[in-house]
Amino acid sequence: HQAMAPILLESVGNERTDYIEHEVVHVKNPHLDSMEEDILYHFNLGTKTHNLQSMFGDIKFVCVGGSGNRMKAFAQFMHRELGLIGDTTDIEDICAGTDRYSMYKVGPVLSISHGMGVPSISIMLHELIKLLYHAKCSDVTLIRIGTSGGVGLEPGTVVITDRAVDSFFRPQFEQVVLGKVIVRSTELDANLAQELLQCATEIPNLPTVIGNTMCTHDFYEGQGRLDGALCSFSTEEKLEYLRKAHEAGVRNIEMESTVFAAMCRICGLKAAVVCVTLLDRFEGDQISTPHDVLTEYQQRPQCLMSHFIKKRLGLFD
Amino acid sequence: HQAMAPILLESVGNERTDYIEHEVVHVKNPHLDSMEEDILYHFNLGTKTHNLQSMFGDIKFVCVGGSGNRMKAFAQFMHRELGLIGDTTDIEDICAGTDRYSMYKVGPVLSISHGMGVPSISIMLHELIKLLYHAKCSDVTLIRIGTSGGVGLEPGTVVITDRAVDSFFRPQFEQVVLGKVIVRSTELDANLAQELLQCATEIPNLPTVIGNTMCTHDFYEGQGRLDGALCSFSTEEKLEYLRKAHEAGVRNIEMESTVFAAMCRICGLKAAVVCVTLLDRFEGDQISTPHDVLTEYQQRPQCLMSHFIKKRLGLFD
Repeated sequence: HQAMAPILLESVGNERTDYIEHEVVHVKNPHLDSMEEDILYHFNLGTKTHNLQSMFGDIKFVCVGGSGNRMKAFAQFMHRELGLIGDTTDIEDICAGTDRYSMYKVGPVLSISHGMGVPSISIMLHELIKLLYHAKCSDVTLIRIGTSGGVGLEPGTVVITDRAVDSFFRPQFEQVVLGKVIVRSTELDANLAQELLQCATEIPNLPTVIGNTMCTHDFYEGQGRLDGALCSFSTEEKLEYLRKAHEAGVRNIEMESTVFAAMCRICGLKAAVVCVTLLDRFEGDQISTPHDVLTEYQQRPQCLMSHFIKKRLGLFD
Repeated sequence: HQAMAPILLESVGNERTDYIEHEVVHVKNPHLDSMEEDILYHFNLGTKTHNLQSMFGDIKFVCVGGSGNRMKAFAQFMHRELGLIGDTTDIEDICAGTDRYSMYKVGPVLSISHGMGVPSISIMLHELIKLLYHAKCSDVTLIRIGTSGGVGLEPGTVVITDRAVDSFFRPQFEQVVLGKVIVRSTELDANLAQELLQCATEIPNLPTVIGNTMCTHDFYEGQGRLDGALCSFSTEEKLEYLRKAHEAGVRNIEMESTVFAAMCRICGLKAAVVCVTLLDRFEGDQISTPHDVLTEYQQRPQCLMSHFIKKRLGLFD
């Protein structure tokens, strides 16, 4: 198959080659180009007030996660890992004018918080994808690094998502558009997942698996927890649901992966979800692990990201 | 009817009287009382590490809103309005150990941020209701003070929610529990809404209406915006959807009201939703209003809250 590629490329000329070599971030909205100005309200950025291309044009890796503090720590960590000059305390929150999200840029890496749940990450993704589009970014890889509940895994295990599934174990995301339900595929980039798994094997003490990730819209009842303000089911019914999830290949549960996968796919962004498990849901519901152990767990996806990015940038030669 | 009340109260004794006079916050979870410890993970609080009753037992009003900065400003504003001693800069974030939510206490008023979207506010509500339960709080009124898009209203108008409806204009909230869809009523306290409307008439320059509030799970496609990264509909289709919403009594659109109404109702909490509109969605999608005007708009629900709380506390005598 490889022998065919050069012939095909030649036959369509340079533009086609450029297209294949540089995948430009695109939006799926015909209205956007006719807008005089685009205000990215929840980032406190805009096309008239900011030169987005000069600010963000060199971005190649976007890492997103729920907590602003964690994404700031990741930016500082990447600053050291990439051997960049300057003090890590100088890394500024690009979205400092709003407290909806936090955003940090470290060389070709953008680190952004997205809050909790599908609606919160979806607002961020709409504005992020528009930002990358306005900035004329190309060949961008987008990775969610988060925390999750494990399903039959030792706490601290990192799960690279194979398929992002909903509460009914279906690899799809339902989006309501003008009062009609639209179903979107949540397929992620399989090559990227394998590349990340390979990276994980090259790092000591980073237990990592590929598995399905269930995305719910609620942390308590929606994930079968017995410790919320509301609970109408028994311990046995909870365990039965988790067993069914496990049979469907689910290895962890979080609250953002389906819309993340669906939106990245539509916009042609190569994407992956890498979440560490903080507990095994077969063993309990409460996160009672000591703070320092949780902190170490949360650094694991960050270590994997650093290794992956440095390898991609050829910094291990 | 009023003549009947004393007889009924007498006939059931003091306990019954106490029950009627003091509505205790309750949870709907039989598992909770058998738990040795309850860790409110996203608040960084717990029943073993904190004396919740001494910290929160006197709470009578809980105001919640999306932004941490805004809820901090509200706490400082209430501190001045209630004439409390001490410097407003000393008001500490009770959840300082986590950046998931912010929480401030000012006398009998608790001010908490909930992030954006149904999943984010639902995590907060589970832990808030458990907190109020553990703290043995009684007669608590819970009010969401937020921002929203208006439907046929002058920007800056405050909407007190009559019915919280979903994207299909139904006054219900669908919760997935163990892979099954459960439908819950989103009925709010009609007397409280009227009491708030009366308060609004007593404040100059506070345009206020009672109307239905539509709660969506997406800010862009889900609310018919033409300016997201994805958009597959025309301007005319957008306007048609907004017209239908208006016909169904919808006067504003936000992203948290249905689950807020449903959970408060189940747990016996008197609740209201008071959101200011930042724009009229018939006129546009982008929030391009100058920052100082937006800031003034966002203070309007806070002014209404202050008036309501001071009136309830008898501070206008």
